[in-house]
Amino acid sequence: MSTNTCKILFNIEGGVAVSALAPEGETLLETARKTGVDIDAPCSGNGTCGKCRVKLLEGTVTGEIPHQITPEDYAAGWRLACGIKAASDLRLEVPLAAGAFKNRIKVTDLSEGRERAAFDTLSKDLDELGYRGDSGLDTVVLTLRPPALDDAAADRERLLAKYAEESGREAGISIFALRKLPRILRESDFSIVCVIRKDPERHLILDVLPATAGAQAVLSGLAVDIGTTTVAMVLTDLRTGKLLAGGSGGNGQIRFGADVISRIIAGTKPGGLERLRKAVIEETILPLITEICGKAGIEPRGIYRAAVAANTTMIHLFTEVYADYLRLEPYVPAFFHGDGFRSADLGLNLNPDAEVILAPSIGSYVGGDITAGVFSSGIYKKDSFSLFIDLGTNGELVFGNSELLMSCACSAGPAFEGGDISCGMRATDGAIEACSIDAETMEPALTIIGGADQKAAGLCGSGLIDTIGELFRCGIINAKGKFIREGKRIGHDEYGAANYILAQDITLNETDIDSFIRAKGAIFSAIKTMLAIMDFSLDAIEEVFVAGGIGSGINVEKAIRIGMFPKIPLEKYRYIGNTSLAGAYAMVNSRGAASKVIEISRGMTYLELSSHPGYMDEFVAACFLPHTNGALFA
Amino acid sequence: MSTNTCKILFNIEGGVAVSALAPEGETLLETARKTGVDIDAPCSGNGTCGKCRVKLLEGTVTGEIPHQITPEDYAAGWRLACGIKAASDLRLEVPLAAGAFKNRIKVTDLSEGRERAAFDTLSKDLDELGYRGDSGLDTVVLTLRPPALDDAAADRERLLAKYAEESGREAGISIFALRKLPRILRESDFSIVCVIRKDPERHLILDVLPATAGAQAVLSGLAVDIGTTTVAMVLTDLRTGKLLAGGSGGNGQIRFGADVISRIIAGTKPGGLERLRKAVIEETILPLITEICGKAGIEPRGIYRAAVAANTTMIHLFTEVYADYLRLEPYVPAFFHGDGFRSADLGLNLNPDAEVILAPSIGSYVGGDITAGVFSSGIYKKDSFSLFIDLGTNGELVFGNSELLMSCACSAGPAFEGGDISCGMRATDGAIEACSIDAETMEPALTIIGGADQKAAGLCGSGLIDTIGELFRCGIINAKGKFIREGKRIGHDEYGAANYILAQDITLNETDIDSFIRAKGAIFSAIKTMLAIMDFSLDAIEEVFVAGGIGSGINVEKAIRIGMFPKIPLEKYRYIGNTSLAGAYAMVNSRGAASKVIEISRGMTYLELSSHPGYMDEFVAACFLPHTNGALFA
Repeated sequence: MSTNTCKILFNIEGGVAVSALAPEGETLLETARKTGVDIDAPCSGNGTCGKCRVKLLEGTVTGEIPHQITPEDYAAGWRLACGIKAASDLRLEVPLAAGAFKNRIKVTDLSEGRERAAFDTLSKDLDELGYRGDSGLDTVVLTLRPPALDDAAADRERLLAKYAEESGREAGISIFALRKLPRILRESDFSIVCVIRKDPERHLILDVLPATAGAQAVLSGLAVDIGTTTVAMVLTDLRTGKLLAGGSGGNGQIRFGADVISRIIAGTKPGGLERLRKAVIEETILPLITEICGKAGIEPRGIYRAAVAANTTMIHLFTEVYADYLRLEPYVPAFFHGDGFRSADLGLNLNPDAEVILAPSIGSYVGGDITAGVFSSGIYKKDSFSLFIDLGTNGELVFGNSELLMSCACSAGPAFEGGDISCGMRATDGAIEACSIDAETMEPALTIIGGADQKAAGLCGSGLIDTIGELFRCGIINAKGKFIREGKRIGHDEYGAANYILAQDITLNETDIDSFIRAKGAIFSAIKTMLAIMDFSLDAIEEVFVAGGIGSGINVEKAIRIGMFPKIPLEKYRYIGNTSLAGAYAMVNSRGAASKVIEISRGMTYLELSSHPGYMDEFVAACFLPHTNGALFA
Repeated sequence: MSTNTCKILFNIEGGVAVSALAPEGETLLETARKTGVDIDAPCSGNGTCGKCRVKLLEGTVTGEIPHQITPEDYAAGWRLACGIKAASDLRLEVPLAAGAFKNRIKVTDLSEGRERAAFDTLSKDLDELGYRGDSGLDTVVLTLRPPALDDAAADRERLLAKYAEESGREAGISIFALRKLPRILRESDFSIVCVIRKDPERHLILDVLPATAGAQAVLSGLAVDIGTTTVAMVLTDLRTGKLLAGGSGGNGQIRFGADVISRIIAGTKPGGLERLRKAVIEETILPLITEICGKAGIEPRGIYRAAVAANTTMIHLFTEVYADYLRLEPYVPAFFHGDGFRSADLGLNLNPDAEVILAPSIGSYVGGDITAGVFSSGIYKKDSFSLFIDLGTNGELVFGNSELLMSCACSAGPAFEGGDISCGMRATDGAIEACSIDAETMEPALTIIGGADQKAAGLCGSGLIDTIGELFRCGIINAKGKFIREGKRIGHDEYGAANYILAQDITLNETDIDSFIRAKGAIFSAIKTMLAIMDFSLDAIEEVFVAGGIGSGINVEKAIRIGMFPKIPLEKYRYIGNTSLAGAYAMVNSRGAASKVIEISRGMTYLELSSHPGYMDEFVAACFLPHTNGALFA
C-alpha cells in the first residue's frame, strides 16, 4: 500500500462504521461518496452550502477553516468534508442527518389528507373524460385440454391456440411468462389466468397466474414522480383506478448535488450516469416499491404498467441517457418523448416486460412533471386563462387555456425545499411548516410537522414563506431583507450579523433571507415577464394553481405580501399538491390520458427566459420585499 | 514428444472421461486446468485449502502426504491435485463437486475444411432461394440540422423526423441507441449512421454509429448451434452472408451430466435452471463470442441479430424455461417456437435489442437442430425420398421429400461422441479418427487428429466405427462383439476379459463394443421402424445425408458392414457436417429462411418410437454385427 493512502474510518451516527482508503489529494467528501457513505452536500462539494459537516475524532487533516463553522465547533472537531483532506489515518463521526436532506422512505397514509384529495379530484376527471380502465391490460381465464401422447403440442402453442380461439386474436407470450408457464399449467390443472397487454398490432401475454388468482386478479400499476429532491409514488388498481398504497422518499442522487446542474455534471464523469441512475433507482425507487407493495400485499412483479413524471434532467438520469447538453446552449434534451421503455431495461423490478410510460418533456427546463401537472390541473380544458405554478427545486410556470399554453422555467434554487437556507429542511417530521409572529413581542407561534410535541428541526418551504412574510409584516426586516429591530428574538453571530431565533438552534439569518428573496424574485419576475411577452396583464389571470411539495400548502396571503405571487384576489388561488404524481397516476391508468399528455406537450410553447432581454431587469426589480414597485402589491 | 510425458485419464464423476498429457514436473491441477477439467481450488493451488481432491485409480504419483487428507482417505487413493505430479500414466477420479469438464474454446479456421464447404453449399442455396440479404436490417446515413436556440427540438425527435422525411416511415429508437445518441450526434457533426430493423409494423433504430462507420458499416449476425456436448458458432456479415469468424467449445453444462436427461433433472433443483443457463451462456457462449468477435474485429454489441439451433432440451435450458415435462409422459415441451426473444433478456452481450431467432422444435426429442438441419440439407425441396441422420448424443432421423417429412429420435447414447467408451473422447487433438486393421497380423494403422506425431489419446466416434468395423471384418470379434482370436494385439484384464490394444494404454474392451452395438442398433432399428410405419422399404431411400460432429466424416462402408446404416449404394451417402449450425446461419441471414424453417417444422410429423410396439423387437434384432438378419447387409 502506498504510504500516501490513508485509512479512514467513518463512524456513522447510529452505530455503523465504514472503512475506506483515501488516496492523497482526495477530499473526504469524495472518499465518502466512493465508499457509499451518504454525506449531504447540496452544493456538490464546492464549499458554499456548509452542510457536509463531519467531526474529526482522531488523526490529522489539511484544509482551511470554513466560515460556516464557528470557532467553538471547529475546536470541537467539526469540519466540512468537502474542504479537508487526510494527512494521516482518520476516524470521523458522520451525523446521521448531516444536512437537511435525509433519504427516509415513508409510506403515505392514503386514507386522508391533501394527497388523497388531489387523487380523488383527478379520479373524477378521469371519469368525466372517459379514461378509466383504459390501461390496455386485461386478464382472461383460459382452460386448456391437457396434453396426451396423441396430443403433444407444446404448452405455448396450446395456450396461444386457445387464446386465438377465445379472443379471435393472435397473441405472443413474453419470455418471462413462458418461463413460468409449464409449472403454472400443471399446478392449476391447465386452467390459468393470463395477463394480456392488448397492443393494437398484437396481444402479448405478460404473465400467467394460477386460476386461484381469479378472473378479476388485481392488475396493478405504478405512478412515480421523480423530483430533484423527493421521489413520490402510488400503486393503483388498473381496473378501477383505486389507490392501493403510496409513499415518498428522498432522491438518492442528492449526494451528487442538490440542483440539476450538479447532477448533470456528475453524470459526465466516467461511470457517472450509471451511478446516478442506480442512486435514484436502487436507493430510492426500489426500496419504495418494496415498502408500498408490502403494504398493498402485491408482488412488484405483479405491476404490469408504470408511468413516470419528472423534470427533464431527472428523466434523463432515470433512463441513463446523457444529459450534459441540457445545460449547454442551445439547451437540447436527448429526447422529449421516450416510448417503448420496459421495466427490465431500466433496472426496475416490476414485471420485466411492463411498459414504463414517461411523461413527455417540452424543453430542457420544462419536463414531464409539468406536462403531467398541466394535465392533472385541467387548465388545458378551460376557456378562461389560468396560471400554473410548480414550486420545486426549479420553478416552472404555465399560463394559458384550452387554446394556448405557454411555459417557462426559472431557477428558483432549492430554497423552497430547504436548500441554501442554514436551518432549511424538507417538509418532513420536525419541519416548521407555518409561523406567525407577534408584532410587538416578536415571539413566534410555530406549526411543526409531526405534531406539537415534535421538536422543531428546521424550516421547510411553507414555513420559510410564512416566517419571512411575518418578519416583514412586523417590521423586523426591511424591504432589502435586513434586520432593523433588536430584542430577545434577535441574535447575532460572532461577526455581529443579526438573525431571528425561531427556536433553540434554529435561526434565520440575512444570508438565508437573501437566498429566499432571490428565489421568490425569480418566480414573480418569471410570471410577469411571461405574461408581458404574451401581451397579458396580471389581471388576465382568472385562476392560479400552485403545485409542488413545499409544505402543507402555502399561505398565499403572506406569499403575496412578500411579492412572490401576484396580487390578485386570494380566492383565485388553489394549492393542488403534487400534480406531477397525479398526472403520472392518470397516465398509468389510461392510455387515453397518456396520449392526452403527449398532445398537450405538443401544443405547449416553451419560452427560454434567460435569452429574453427584459427578464434580468424584472428579476432585479423583484428582489425586494415586496418589490421595487410596491404599487404592484399595494 | 518427450518420453517423460505421462498420459492422464480424468474420470469425472457422472461418466465423462477426459484424456490429457502431463509433461514432467507439472502438477495434476495444472494439467487439469490446461485440459479444461475444472477442479475447484480456491487457494489457487498453493496447498492450503485442501479442496482439489482427486482419487488415484491407477498409476504412480509423487508428492507429500497433505495434512488435509486423513490416513484412511490417503490409503483409499485420495490426493490433492495441486500437490502431486505424475510418475506414470494415470487414471484419476474427479468428484463432480470438485470439478467438471470444461471444454476448451477453439476458433475455427474458416478458410478451409469441411465446415467451410458446408457453408459454401448453403450459401449457394440461399442464392437460389432468393434469401440473401433478407435479415430485415439496414443502415442509413442521416445528416441532421444542428439545433439552435430557435430550433431546440430534442435529439430523438430531430432524428426521427429526419428518418420519416427520408424513408417515408415512422420509426422508434431503442433505449440503448438513445443512450448513445447525444454524444454520437455531436462527435459526428450531426451526421450519423443508423442501424434500422425494418419490422412490418414499425421501423426501429437499434444503434447509432458515427458517420465514419460508413454507409456500408458491417451488420453482423451470429449463428449458434448448441449441442449437448459442443457449442459451435459463426459470425456472418448480414449484407453478404460472408463468414467473418467461427469457433466451437464444450458446453459448460457438461458438469451437470453428459446427457439431456441429467441436465433436465439438474434444472429441477432450486436455482438449477439459472445455473444451467449460466453454465452454457457464461462459460461457453460469451467466451466464444469474445474470441470470434476479437478475430473478426467486431464488438459483440455490433451483432444485431442471432439465430440459435439446438435440441429441445438445450433450447429450454438456454432460455431458462422449465424443461422437466420433456422427460415425463406425454413428453410435452414448454414451447415449439419462441418468438420475440431479445439478447438482453437472455443474458447475451450482443446489441441488447438484437432479436434472437430460435429454430423451432417439433417434439421433446426432435428439436431446432433438426428443423434447421433439414432446411440446410435441402431434403424438403426434393421430389425424391431422402434420409437425414443427425448423429449426436441422441440420434435423430428424418425421412421424406417435398411433400412429406417424418422424424423420430432414438437414444443412441454418447458413444458416438466418445462417452460410455473406456478410451472414448471427443473429436479433438489426439483422437483416433480412423483405423484400418491388417486381417492377418491384426496390426492397426491409425489416423490421429492433430497429425501423425500426435500421441494417440483415445477414440472418437468415427474412429470407433472404423475400429469395430475392422475388428469384425478381420474376424477378431464375432457377431455378438466378443473376441474370438488371440495374438499380440489382444490383451486381457485382471479378470481375463479380452480387449484390443489400439496403442499404448488405449484398449477397446467388450463392454465398449457392447455400448457401441447398442448405439448403432438404436440408429438402424429406428430407420427400419420409421420406414416400416410409413410403408417404405429401405430401397425407397434415394439419398442419405449424415450430419453431426462425430469426427472427420464417417467411413460409410464400415458403418454399413457393422449394420449401423442400411445397405444401399455408397454413392447415395453424403456426410454434410454440422447442419444445425448451417441452418442457424441461414436463419440469421434471412427472414425468409427463418420463416421457411418454421414452415418446415409445421409440416414435419414426429413419431414417438418408444410408444411404437414393433420398435423394441427391431432394436434387439439390430444389436448384432451386422444384424440378426444378416441378409439385410449381405
